[in-house]
Amino acid sequence: METWVERHEVFSGPIFTVYTGQARLDDGQTARRDMVAHRGGVGIVALHEERVLLVRQFRLAGGAAFEEIPAGLRELGEDAAACAARELAEELGYAAGRLLPLATYRTSPGFTDEVTAIFLALDLTPTTANPDWDERLHPVELPLAELPDALAAGRFEDGKTLVGLYATLAWLARGGR
Amino acid sequence: METWVERHEVFSGPIFTVYTGQARLDDGQTARRDMVAHRGGVGIVALHEERVLLVRQFRLAGGAAFEEIPAGLRELGEDAAACAARELAEELGYAAGRLLPLATYRTSPGFTDEVTAIFLALDLTPTTANPDWDERLHPVELPLAELPDALAAGRFEDGKTLVGLYATLAWLARGGR
Repeated sequence: METWVERHEVFSGPIFTVYTGQARLDDGQTARRDMVAHRGGVGIVALHEERVLLVRQFRLAGGAAFEEIPAGLRELGEDAAACAARELAEELGYAAGRLLPLATYRTSPGFTDEVTAIFLALDLTPTTANPDWDERLHPVELPLAELPDALAAGRFEDGKTLVGLYATLAWLARGGR
Repeated sequence: METWVERHEVFSGPIFTVYTGQARLDDGQTARRDMVAHRGGVGIVALHEERVLLVRQFRLAGGAAFEEIPAGLRELGEDAAACAARELAEELGYAAGRLLPLATYRTSPGFTDEVTAIFLALDLTPTTANPDWDERLHPVELPLAELPDALAAGRFEDGKTLVGLYATLAWLARGGR
């Protein structure tokens, strides 16, 4: 177990805040620790007519475009499932008849408290897409039958996309539908 | 595509550096962007005598202990496979006869450039464990046969552990060994 002896904020922005300080370890020694406190978000694996609905999006932090499951940041106090339904509508223009929790995980617990909750969206019906003004999203559809080969070939580079797609295949293999 | 119009460093520590600035979007508009530049690291799925070798470790950023695959940060200029071999020896005390690349992915490309490379370590022989002085690691072994149920039950909360274990099951299902 580690506890902060002292920490102070060194940066705060709309998405994350950065802290640095000293932590006490199990044996009483102290060590420097830096961390990023993050708002957290959701990802949605959307299945529609035997296809997975993805978005291609340029990521400045990654310096490239990535194929990702639809995703977004949680608003303050927003329930994860409500956030997933909102992002599915905004980014892809669908409403889900069923929204099942697939995985809730830490993206990189060595330096950030960011938690991502992933949902499986089924029984989709069209609404109207309405991305945030500074998002540039390009829809991509992948036949579900091609998903195992696409994963094995290393097509997806985004963590939440890998976790969500692998968890979906495991859920289907266990008889989910 | 987005490009930085200007950015400046607001924090720099041993593991990550934080930048804030303005980016130009596809249509010429600008938007604020903050990012965390991270050294990146590796994770290792170690299979030994039909068991997966994990470590339980308290994470200050997560505020709890997590079961994780062995992992570590890359030294400057260090090759990912060399880093994986070093961390496998340091954290678990094994050398791998075979070290196969399983996945290289972005942990959270919306705010950080962190890349994690995951390897599958096979044909293990004992050496001597030697964790970093400020790491407190507790080895955990899981029978490979129990892995699908453990994943379905939500036992693992760490992203690289989920990606690594799911990718290992997929590799085994495709006839790997």
